[in-house]
Amino acid sequence: MGKQEIRCAAKVSLDKPAAEQACLHNRWHPDVPSCGTIKNGEVVKIECVDWTGGQIGNNDSADDVRDVDLTRVHYLTGPFEIETAEPGDVLLVEIQDVQPMQDQPWGFTGVFAKENGGGFLDELYPKPAKAIWDFEGIFCSSRHIPGVRFAGLIHPGILGCAPSPEILETWNKREAELISACSHMSRVVALPPNPQSVHVGSGDDSIKEKVGREGARTIPGRPEHGGNCDIKNLSLGSKVYLPVHVNGAKFSVGDLHFSQGDGEISFCGAIEMAGVITIKFTVMKGGMEQLGMKSPIYIPGPVEPQFGPGRYIYFEGFSVDENGKQHYMDATVAYRQTCLRVIEYLRRYGYDDYQIYLLLSCAPVQGHIAGIVDIPNACTTMGVPMDIFDFDISPHVKAEKRDLGSCAFASS
Amino acid sequence: MGKQEIRCAAKVSLDKPAAEQACLHNRWHPDVPSCGTIKNGEVVKIECVDWTGGQIGNNDSADDVRDVDLTRVHYLTGPFEIETAEPGDVLLVEIQDVQPMQDQPWGFTGVFAKENGGGFLDELYPKPAKAIWDFEGIFCSSRHIPGVRFAGLIHPGILGCAPSPEILETWNKREAELISACSHMSRVVALPPNPQSVHVGSGDDSIKEKVGREGARTIPGRPEHGGNCDIKNLSLGSKVYLPVHVNGAKFSVGDLHFSQGDGEISFCGAIEMAGVITIKFTVMKGGMEQLGMKSPIYIPGPVEPQFGPGRYIYFEGFSVDENGKQHYMDATVAYRQTCLRVIEYLRRYGYDDYQIYLLLSCAPVQGHIAGIVDIPNACTTMGVPMDIFDFDISPHVKAEKRDLGSCAFASS
Amino acid sequence: MGKQEIRCAAKVSLDKPAAEQACLHNRWHPDVPSCGTIKNGEVVKIECVDWTGGQIGNNDSADDVRDVDLTRVHYLTGPFEIETAEPGDVLLVEIQDVQPMQDQPWGFTGVFAKENGGGFLDELYPKPAKAIWDFEGIFCSSRHIPGVRFAGLIHPGILGCAPSPEILETWNKREAELISACSHMSRVVALPPNPQSVHVGSGDDSIKEKVGREGARTIPGRPEHGGNCDIKNLSLGSKVYLPVHVNGAKFSVGDLHFSQGDGEISFCGAIEMAGVITIKFTVMKGGMEQLGMKSPIYIPGPVEPQFGPGRYIYFEGFSVDENGKQHYMDATVAYRQTCLRVIEYLRRYGYDDYQIYLLLSCAPVQGHIAGIVDIPNACTTMGVPMDIFDFDISPHVKAEKRDLGSCAFASS
Amino acid sequence: MGKQEIRCAAKVSLDKPAAEQACLHNRWHPDVPSCGTIKNGEVVKIECVDWTGGQIGNNDSADDVRDVDLTRVHYLTGPFEIETAEPGDVLLVEIQDVQPMQDQPWGFTGVFAKENGGGFLDELYPKPAKAIWDFEGIFCSSRHIPGVRFAGLIHPGILGCAPSPEILETWNKREAELISACSHMSRVVALPPNPQSVHVGSGDDSIKEKVGREGARTIPGRPEHGGNCDIKNLSLGSKVYLPVHVNGAKFSVGDLHFSQGDGEISFCGAIEMAGVITIKFTVMKGGMEQLGMKSPIYIPGPVEPQFGPGRYIYFEGFSVDENGKQHYMDATVAYRQTCLRVIEYLRRYGYDDYQIYLLLSCAPVQGHIAGIVDIPNACTTMGVPMDIFDFDISPHVKAEKRDLGSCAFASS
Repeated sequence: MGKQEIRCAAKVSLDKPAAEQACLHNRWHPDVPSCGTIKNGEVVKIECVDWTGGQIGNNDSADDVRDVDLTRVHYLTGPFEIETAEPGDVLLVEIQDVQPMQDQPWGFTGVFAKENGGGFLDELYPKPAKAIWDFEGIFCSSRHIPGVRFAGLIHPGILGCAPSPEILETWNKREAELISACSHMSRVVALPPNPQSVHVGSGDDSIKEKVGREGARTIPGRPEHGGNCDIKNLSLGSKVYLPVHVNGAKFSVGDLHFSQGDGEISFCGAIEMAGVITIKFTVMKGGMEQLGMKSPIYIPGPVEPQFGPGRYIYFEGFSVDENGKQHYMDATVAYRQTCLRVIEYLRRYGYDDYQIYLLLSCAPVQGHIAGIVDIPNACTTMGVPMDIFDFDISPHVKAEKRDLGSCAFASS
Repeated sequence: MGKQEIRCAAKVSLDKPAAEQACLHNRWHPDVPSCGTIKNGEVVKIECVDWTGGQIGNNDSADDVRDVDLTRVHYLTGPFEIETAEPGDVLLVEIQDVQPMQDQPWGFTGVFAKENGGGFLDELYPKPAKAIWDFEGIFCSSRHIPGVRFAGLIHPGILGCAPSPEILETWNKREAELISACSHMSRVVALPPNPQSVHVGSGDDSIKEKVGREGARTIPGRPEHGGNCDIKNLSLGSKVYLPVHVNGAKFSVGDLHFSQGDGEISFCGAIEMAGVITIKFTVMKGGMEQLGMKSPIYIPGPVEPQFGPGRYIYFEGFSVDENGKQHYMDATVAYRQTCLRVIEYLRRYGYDDYQIYLLLSCAPVQGHIAGIVDIPNACTTMGVPMDIFDFDISPHVKAEKRDLGSCAFASS
Repeated sequence: MGKQEIRCAAKVSLDKPAAEQACLHNRWHPDVPSCGTIKNGEVVKIECVDWTGGQIGNNDSADDVRDVDLTRVHYLTGPFEIETAEPGDVLLVEIQDVQPMQDQPWGFTGVFAKENGGGFLDELYPKPAKAIWDFEGIFCSSRHIPGVRFAGLIHPGILGCAPSPEILETWNKREAELISACSHMSRVVALPPNPQSVHVGSGDDSIKEKVGREGARTIPGRPEHGGNCDIKNLSLGSKVYLPVHVNGAKFSVGDLHFSQGDGEISFCGAIEMAGVITIKFTVMKGGMEQLGMKSPIYIPGPVEPQFGPGRYIYFEGFSVDENGKQHYMDATVAYRQTCLRVIEYLRRYGYDDYQIYLLLSCAPVQGHIAGIVDIPNACTTMGVPMDIFDFDISPHVKAEKRDLGSCAFASS
Repeated sequence: MGKQEIRCAAKVSLDKPAAEQACLHNRWHPDVPSCGTIKNGEVVKIECVDWTGGQIGNNDSADDVRDVDLTRVHYLTGPFEIETAEPGDVLLVEIQDVQPMQDQPWGFTGVFAKENGGGFLDELYPKPAKAIWDFEGIFCSSRHIPGVRFAGLIHPGILGCAPSPEILETWNKREAELISACSHMSRVVALPPNPQSVHVGSGDDSIKEKVGREGARTIPGRPEHGGNCDIKNLSLGSKVYLPVHVNGAKFSVGDLHFSQGDGEISFCGAIEMAGVITIKFTVMKGGMEQLGMKSPIYIPGPVEPQFGPGRYIYFEGFSVDENGKQHYMDATVAYRQTCLRVIEYLRRYGYDDYQIYLLLSCAPVQGHIAGIVDIPNACTTMGVPMDIFDFDISPHVKAEKRDLGSCAFASS
């Protein structure tokens, strides 16, 4: 035996537009042609571009974030044909490692402009903003958010198998109904199929046309297959059990994150990066029925960074919004309030609100549903690990304002 | 020196109606008379009745749960005058221990009837149900849910300082607006002041009358003071920072839980118990401004039961409800779906759905806001610790139905 | 059902000499009469005196430590007859809880005088010293070692079943051989049977005489049954598997510790206390053969205080002694050096060496065998949790001398 | 900015003999010429060969282990000149990452023959043996020890700064005294300077000759600088504080381990591998005095694999050896007994003793000094994580013998 490297099932180029690469695609559709075949039981490496397909640069301006073309994002690597997988099976995906590209040891976190993407707090923080993170082995730090440094919990934001035509139809129908029902709202509530910038790997124009018309957008996760679930501890070392809906499973993966906070609140909120993921694939025949499975499940790996339960400050939020309006058991409202409580706390040290908004999006904060039954107030909490700061943020230590610089903003 | 016991600031009787005890009350109001004074810096023990005031028995019928009188619940111990505390201060509450009553080593978890209390899943599970938990030191187990056993993470469901008259008015106004706005809904969305069964400790009839008219119900937590926040890791060993709104703080505590899952989904969902809490009180002068505080914060203790990150199975839920309807970024809907995914998984072992509903309410499950920005789907997760089961619930082990008995139901 | 307390299998008095109590004894011998019977499967509470039988007081002098009568220590509660247990079985002991006596919420740590007991560092620190620890719920702190506070990991220093006559003979023989082989050494290397102050519970004079002649001293743990193993995480929540050597097992327990560091270096080094332990007893028939068992094994509980791996400072020690002499692979020498490295580090903050010696004995320090094969140097490490200090002991923060008072010393 | 890779300060070749590479050396001596310069504050990558310099192959025979040339081992990468470092300073080494070579994703664990290297249990297990470990991302498994799989805790076995001439002299003197004092023993107790196979990087013959005569062997760790400390959690993410004894520090590193158990008992006991380490270097001026430092200290990173305290089985060992002889407070003897207890336990599943010996050397077992004061018995413990096995090794589950293959043995 001797030397031997794990097979790389798909290589991407960071120097070529994502839209020109045959192993990438940016819609969920059963007809996107496979870019390779993987054996049942095989371990492979798969390279991924960052979720904006390289639109964001390592610089000190958020102009690129402001101007991002959101039709050209979420390029996934795949789909891969997994041998022997059939509808009704479960695809067991063991994430054995995730690493940034060796020659690109950095990532970014962005706040999208309210009018181009937005985010969880865009009513209050409508401006585009950005932080660049430098990777130092397992740690990262940012010149745009001084005073913090933490170990990543690297994970893919997106992984899943292709929908069947029936499932795809369900998705399109129910999201269209939402769009229609919310037509009075001033904000985009869901994204219908859109032919613009569709990329279907090596697929020809007729496939492209069909996928453009029917293909599901990759922004939301969806219960039937997972997709863009953006779960911070579905991470390296995890075993993920994915429902299979088409022959060969047609597995895709992308949107790698060096780290993410619960909620990924600024939308482009994780530390987004290009990288390579190592996965072992195993097919569980008839797994969906066996597991009673409607949505993916997973078991995290044993290597999550550990701070000790007593090293977090927890903030509480309730479903009374910032205008004093009482909402009924609304965990979304409560979580927004929880985030605002953290911003109020951390700004005392000299951080700009946008810096904190970026930080809470990507640092390993714990967002919990605490109480969801005490009418009318849902209560959520956010635990902020003290040890990611290089100064003491304990409540018993008097806060001093310091010079903590600035994140990147857009030119005006 | 030598022998010496920590002072008990309030003793309760489990043999006497809660409504007859001078150190208990069941409304938030600044005029409820103090039942004792505690020094700044003092450590005391405080006894508490269970949140139903003893209405639930250690037996095998849920008739008591079905018939519970919800105007006679949430009897809190207090309020206590904390020396030197003034509005604008922060009261630091160090929870040094929480223990069940020595002679009552058991607790209960209930599912309320949909028409009398309800719960997070009452559309699907409308019947009353109950499980009794026996405490074996730090562990608990239930004859009504065989096959599980776990260490408690004991905590008070409710703690907080009295509202000022202004804050009380705000509460009553905004909750009244919600009630009025939701008058078309078939369910109770909030509870207005109600003179029935008001108890104000040693207060006389005029106070009782006033508190009955104005006093805030204790069911919801509220941002201004915490209250019934029902947070599972605001637990023994925690330091809690509470805003002070009236002279002397008027601190109350109650609703002790031996254990609770994130969300406490069945409403009477924690393992409810009578017990004694040991607290150190410290006043931080001017703390609210210093901490930029609008809602309580806390730092958990170091003794949370630890399973290792790889000993949880995580379930995903999205904001598409059980009828297939797409909701917009609704974490409450997503969390309900997450709970249903766990029920579907665990029923394969022979558990009745109500047993699982009870279990998820009180076992140390981790409920996370995972993604809250990927329109239109909020994604939440629930991590279920495998090690609380005495059989292997790993997905790779074939589930076998076993005889797992039954929880307590009501007679028909 | 309703109210019910767990049965207390043995009550002790803190106001009466240990030597007068029928449920206590201070030798290992199969003929010590049982003080009670426990059913297979039963849960009971057992009260214990502190290991000195109350010789040490809550005061500020170490005179009592200096003058301690070491023939009157290690009073164990028991022995208990466990129904159905026979030689060759394993007794499964589930430690469901351990608590200090409610009316004696304090404990002590002592450094014995070199000439009366000694300790691991007695060549360097020959004087008697003492620290009193006040229990504040799950935490403890000491007026004699200011600046530290930590949660206990409460455990029994001693638990085990009685030896058979054959095993007892083995013990006496091999320890006598050591004593004889080391007769040239200036220090006591082992304690032979000694009739002085023998206590055999309710046993009559003939038993007393026999036990005085043959009974094994309780100071050392021994491989055949465990005994005084002094293991810091054989603690509340643990399952301990003990070999049974006589009919009825004759289980004894005592020497409760609120907390202990690895090594318990000052000998009277844990936080010694009187208290009550709650245990479930289960007999595994034929367990010794089934488990291939020669010495006890255990599985810790899930509630050990957790600091996070990055919250420890680790110190290294090698088997080169303080005189510069190279020893061959001697982990004992290496561990002594490791302890000295910590003392050197912590004295920079103003602690007296004796204070640190006491602290390392009882705080939750992690003592590891790191490398035991790199001739000639064994390497051991000690991890000191930073979070037990109320000031920052990180190496990157400049140490400042503070006034940290003094531990208790003996009058001269 | 944009793409940029961390500078690699030294590259090694796995296809060329270690003895021919200018950035490697295999003795501690101040005169070994530096192979490069690193700035104060710089982050660099450093490549390392495995500690045998490539003598062990990925095959199924232990002939290579049996025949290993122990004069040609421990090739360290370096020494590196760290700018501004002077004697008395402390070199802060932040281990930001450690990875195996991408094209060599495997490592090995060996038991050396008693007559050529030996190990901790060589009296009982004198034969050479070997296990090859395949790396699957963060996990490893071995065809030679089926049924186990675990995440690595990657670390360097050796790191340190060069000794000054005075320190070197001390080492040589004290180890010579030991050799002389133990001349009656049948085993090698220490290794004196030896000119055979000396490698001094780019150094010329005169340096080679001098280093051959005076240079300290790299096998033992030593208190003055650390060196081959073989500490399992001095690992990725750690901050290590190293004493500086010569101008420029002359830092060297090597002997990378994918994983190691406490004690590294089989000597070639970690999972040995070639790889690359990423380090940030910072000089603390005057650090030795400031920290009162005689030996290195370190703070582990936050990413240690976590199993939960209740997922370990702990075994106890005492200082009574396998012949029944009582030793006086000998932690080395106690730890050997502890290891034997684990072997007895695990062999019930069908493992060969040599497989277990290999496994305990490299899996993340916790070896603790438990009690070191209860004369005459030292007590040590070893915690074995249950979750590294793919079958249940709980004591309450009856052990079944299975076919667990064999490790690699030497041909006879």
